[in-house]
Amino acid sequence: MIIVMRPDALQEDLNKVEEKIKSEGLSYHLSKGSIRTIVGVIGDKKIISGLQMNAFAGVEKTVHITEKYKLVSREFRPEDTIVDVNGAKVGGKHLAVMAGPCAVESREQLMEAAECVKKGGATFLRGGAFKPRTSPYDFQGLAEKGLAMLKEAGEKFDLRVVTEVVNQNDIDMISNYADVLQIGARNMQNFQLLKEVGKTHKPVLLKRGLSATISEWLNAAEYIANEGNYNIILCERGIRTYETFTRNTLDLSAVAAVKELSHLPVIADPSHGTGRWQMVRPMARAAVAAGADGLIIEVHPHPECALSDGDQSLTPKNFEATMAEVKKIAAIMGKE
Amino acid sequence: MIIVMRPDALQEDLNKVEEKIKSEGLSYHLSKGSIRTIVGVIGDKKIISGLQMNAFAGVEKTVHITEKYKLVSREFRPEDTIVDVNGAKVGGKHLAVMAGPCAVESREQLMEAAECVKKGGATFLRGGAFKPRTSPYDFQGLAEKGLAMLKEAGEKFDLRVVTEVVNQNDIDMISNYADVLQIGARNMQNFQLLKEVGKTHKPVLLKRGLSATISEWLNAAEYIANEGNYNIILCERGIRTYETFTRNTLDLSAVAAVKELSHLPVIADPSHGTGRWQMVRPMARAAVAAGADGLIIEVHPHPECALSDGDQSLTPKNFEATMAEVKKIAAIMGKE
Amino acid sequence: MIIVMRPDALQEDLNKVEEKIKSEGLSYHLSKGSIRTIVGVIGDKKIISGLQMNAFAGVEKTVHITEKYKLVSREFRPEDTIVDVNGAKVGGKHLAVMAGPCAVESREQLMEAAECVKKGGATFLRGGAFKPRTSPYDFQGLAEKGLAMLKEAGEKFDLRVVTEVVNQNDIDMISNYADVLQIGARNMQNFQLLKEVGKTHKPVLLKRGLSATISEWLNAAEYIANEGNYNIILCERGIRTYETFTRNTLDLSAVAAVKELSHLPVIADPSHGTGRWQMVRPMARAAVAAGADGLIIEVHPHPECALSDGDQSLTPKNFEATMAEVKKIAAIMGKE
Amino acid sequence: MIIVMRPDALQEDLNKVEEKIKSEGLSYHLSKGSIRTIVGVIGDKKIISGLQMNAFAGVEKTVHITEKYKLVSREFRPEDTIVDVNGAKVGGKHLAVMAGPCAVESREQLMEAAECVKKGGATFLRGGAFKPRTSPYDFQGLAEKGLAMLKEAGEKFDLRVVTEVVNQNDIDMISNYADVLQIGARNMQNFQLLKEVGKTHKPVLLKRGLSATISEWLNAAEYIANEGNYNIILCERGIRTYETFTRNTLDLSAVAAVKELSHLPVIADPSHGTGRWQMVRPMARAAVAAGADGLIIEVHPHPECALSDGDQSLTPKNFEATMAEVKKIAAIMGKE
Repeated sequence: MIIVMRPDALQEDLNKVEEKIKSEGLSYHLSKGSIRTIVGVIGDKKIISGLQMNAFAGVEKTVHITEKYKLVSREFRPEDTIVDVNGAKVGGKHLAVMAGPCAVESREQLMEAAECVKKGGATFLRGGAFKPRTSPYDFQGLAEKGLAMLKEAGEKFDLRVVTEVVNQNDIDMISNYADVLQIGARNMQNFQLLKEVGKTHKPVLLKRGLSATISEWLNAAEYIANEGNYNIILCERGIRTYETFTRNTLDLSAVAAVKELSHLPVIADPSHGTGRWQMVRPMARAAVAAGADGLIIEVHPHPECALSDGDQSLTPKNFEATMAEVKKIAAIMGKE
Repeated sequence: MIIVMRPDALQEDLNKVEEKIKSEGLSYHLSKGSIRTIVGVIGDKKIISGLQMNAFAGVEKTVHITEKYKLVSREFRPEDTIVDVNGAKVGGKHLAVMAGPCAVESREQLMEAAECVKKGGATFLRGGAFKPRTSPYDFQGLAEKGLAMLKEAGEKFDLRVVTEVVNQNDIDMISNYADVLQIGARNMQNFQLLKEVGKTHKPVLLKRGLSATISEWLNAAEYIANEGNYNIILCERGIRTYETFTRNTLDLSAVAAVKELSHLPVIADPSHGTGRWQMVRPMARAAVAAGADGLIIEVHPHPECALSDGDQSLTPKNFEATMAEVKKIAAIMGKE
Repeated sequence: MIIVMRPDALQEDLNKVEEKIKSEGLSYHLSKGSIRTIVGVIGDKKIISGLQMNAFAGVEKTVHITEKYKLVSREFRPEDTIVDVNGAKVGGKHLAVMAGPCAVESREQLMEAAECVKKGGATFLRGGAFKPRTSPYDFQGLAEKGLAMLKEAGEKFDLRVVTEVVNQNDIDMISNYADVLQIGARNMQNFQLLKEVGKTHKPVLLKRGLSATISEWLNAAEYIANEGNYNIILCERGIRTYETFTRNTLDLSAVAAVKELSHLPVIADPSHGTGRWQMVRPMARAAVAAGADGLIIEVHPHPECALSDGDQSLTPKNFEATMAEVKKIAAIMGKE
Repeated sequence: MIIVMRPDALQEDLNKVEEKIKSEGLSYHLSKGSIRTIVGVIGDKKIISGLQMNAFAGVEKTVHITEKYKLVSREFRPEDTIVDVNGAKVGGKHLAVMAGPCAVESREQLMEAAECVKKGGATFLRGGAFKPRTSPYDFQGLAEKGLAMLKEAGEKFDLRVVTEVVNQNDIDMISNYADVLQIGARNMQNFQLLKEVGKTHKPVLLKRGLSATISEWLNAAEYIANEGNYNIILCERGIRTYETFTRNTLDLSAVAAVKELSHLPVIADPSHGTGRWQMVRPMARAAVAAGADGLIIEVHPHPECALSDGDQSLTPKNFEATMAEVKKIAAIMGKE
């Protein structure tokens, strides 16, 4: 931590800052410029991160130099993590394609969707049985009935099942049906839920929060890893900006950033990331070219009848065309 | 809902749109301009909100005209709601002042803080026993021990106790100690938690999410009201923007907006809203002038020793000076 | 500047960094932690700000400690600047109220507006003769004819005239008619225009850019001051965020921040800041309570007939009611 | 335009709205729901866009249905525009690569840079002679001397020259040296400058503003086209968001959006878009995969000595490696 003293700070102010640092068992360097004195604090980063130095008289500002997350960092583990989902790999040379409807609506819809995503080349089936919706009056999902359908479809078409967990008390139950537990954007900082999925050994798909920084996202992953579960797949799904043409702004530079900062695999969600089915194809290509380890795409046999997110769902035909293009990009990227 | 057809939409496309609307039991008006046709859909807004019309061929875009929330809207209830917290009122002519440390750290700290916030004019004591922190390595709170201290301090100084709930399974336990259940910004769309606090009849302090729109915030409140609990106090606590000088951007226009759109009381949090103790005083004044029904302010007897948010905590002396100014503004606003 | 070396940086990398610093005539301190080495660079801040240290091998990141602006900083001049506009003061104990239509549309409209803003207590008349509009097909202003009307109205009602400059070649001409040259949000970083108004000695109203940081805004003011013109009035007019209910998000904490960082007066524009006439009154009160030195408000005798920004314009009657409330807040703030 | 009346609007309010519409020579449809009446206005969109209906009593809100730009829209011209820059094409099947230093610093630097970008496969040389800088104390460029160097380097290595115009009075002079006039992000809504470059027939590179919506960006292009100059190349260069790890957030979905909405070619700037040289390569690949018609990349022979933007400049070696990967993606996209 760097502490910048105000130009009008008194020697007494500086003394109190120094005493505080020493009292915490930390050391420091003073750097006296012609206008300001700067204090560089050295020592245990957990102690440093707890210091409240802006509250001291004479302090202009403090700057944190290092990140708090550790287990998920590239420094901690230089080689890429490959998450094994019952034989289907995510990370490294594997391009994981997860596809399916936003919400499970009926057995027929799901079976039809599963068949076509399998045909298009997906290895994971996505589908929500518990839907976090902005309004209490929107469709909230089929709950356990939907999970049973997912499991059936997954088994029938040899697809791993990815589904969202919104209630910490449902984790065990959902684990009986699903292969990957998804933490949605709205729950990225639901720390209780993170801890609970961390206690399982199930693979977790951790979506980036609507306005989460990359640092906050990796700290959220750290909550999971800190409980002993390293089977974490990060997912960039678009951030909130001022632009209204798209539902969110898919931040593909976050994919490149995660590759630099962390050893965890990262995939992209061009469906939620854009909110417009017309843009899913170009952004799917771009995500893979940026280095993503996979894609999660909404596919619905009849988007115009979808109970949620029909606007951003691909038809089976569009999905196949998208996959054909994605595969060519993946080959260049040395994937699959 | 307004459906805007593309200039190149076919008659057949329009027919399918019309059929879909009719099949849902809704009616519509066609408005044919020289370039585009526009379809205005009329009927039950719950059905309309579920339509996925962008997925239809020939549709350029759709525009939602009405909000989904109802119970919390000014339309539903024109007069202001006044929340009664064991005799302390929030809303109407009452200016509620909630103050105290970010986190409960020890009995001594809390008693000292409670004494000085009471002296400064607060009627509510705030303090966290369960802290949602960005990193798993930051101080997570004293849990039930902290709650017991809050209750003791509240009783001793006749202050109502406000504390955050982060785990749905803790609601009953926390309700034994606290008068107001706080839902923090990170949990504003933790719908499970919203439903659970909705089932109690405890007053709920619902903070606006880090990047929640006013509409999403009111829909979150609707989740609580929809379970039967109308004792909701909204709290503007700053939104996330590109500006880095302040921790968040306190959006006081949201206070004015809520007054227009909803009957619920709304308070402001200038501590989290700015992240800098120097700015709490001017923004506390501004919030009351904008029409806020109260303030929630971090006060710590020794901010430089705080375990969290010392940077934005007022000293007891600063709190008293702030309150003296706030009271003058409140008088002009016809409060207290 | 603080240079943070990567954990895997080589001694050779560090040597090159040190050589570069020395070769620029700067000095430095090394702070070697257990994981990272941190280099604090000391010396002439203009030289430091030009260093491109992230381009060196082994450098993880750099952190700038000090701001580049100087002349407009509170450090440079501790006492408040009071701008004298032909006898009307802005800053210190003076609350400046600038009001009038968004655009000058006709002599009748302007005279009617001027009469009513004078009556309401304004001392400045605002009105655009050159309008920067998003679309080339929107009304672009009456140009010099509009300026002549402004001058006439200003003289008749003893109001100082504020009008926007969008073309550097018009500055001399506009200066013949106006008392204050306004630089609009879209031109805040039109550095050529800033330099040109800096060469005059006319008071300049510098609006904050749509997504300008407070630091960038003060650096824009520095461009003007650096040419010798210190008669600068800053104006917070709302920033761009994800929220769509309001046209912009009026950032009143920026008013408090400017008071801390700079000696220049700062006013607020609740009309553009909210885009909704219903919200002008509460936000005008809040701005003054936050410490603003004045307000700029759109008033139109017949908002429903305005050629631009009718949505956010007050009627004369609303303006009077707003001023009555603002004056009470101003009195508490020790203004006027 | 859709006008949504308030639930409590009076018949008299509605009458006034209808009268206003008729008085402007427009027509309308009424759609009376059980709660609200909605008015759809039909007619000349220039007249509609000037209506200030929110200023009428009883109006809740208005929604604009159509965009104001016309000449640059895909509707107006369905086929892709290909801009011919003295034989070098931008758009269609041509991938344009523009590269070079941020600023022209010396003849040696520029010649070295030009040689290596040519070798790497660029067909355009970029370099700034007039630099818009946040602080007046930062390097402002070599002005006309720099332009002469650019022209010399362009001729020697058969590269078209792209350089920024910041002063409307310099356009003729710069046109003597440069092949493409760049309008930087900060000047995207400097409408005077847009009109002036519109009056020339020089190709214009129009960067997206720091927080410009796609709609505002296309309207800015409309200003140029409206003066008769259709030789416009759009450039996505990153938008301002809350994320601080990258300098800006490169919005590649804007590339896909522009392809849908406009016939103009669009390129991407991964250097400014990320601000970190490490991220230029993945984002260059992603941009081409998203459908960009080209790239503009900062390359400096010695980034650590650059006078500006060294942090985001590629070395010649990195540029070559980047181009090798980009070419493979371009081939898949059917480019060059």
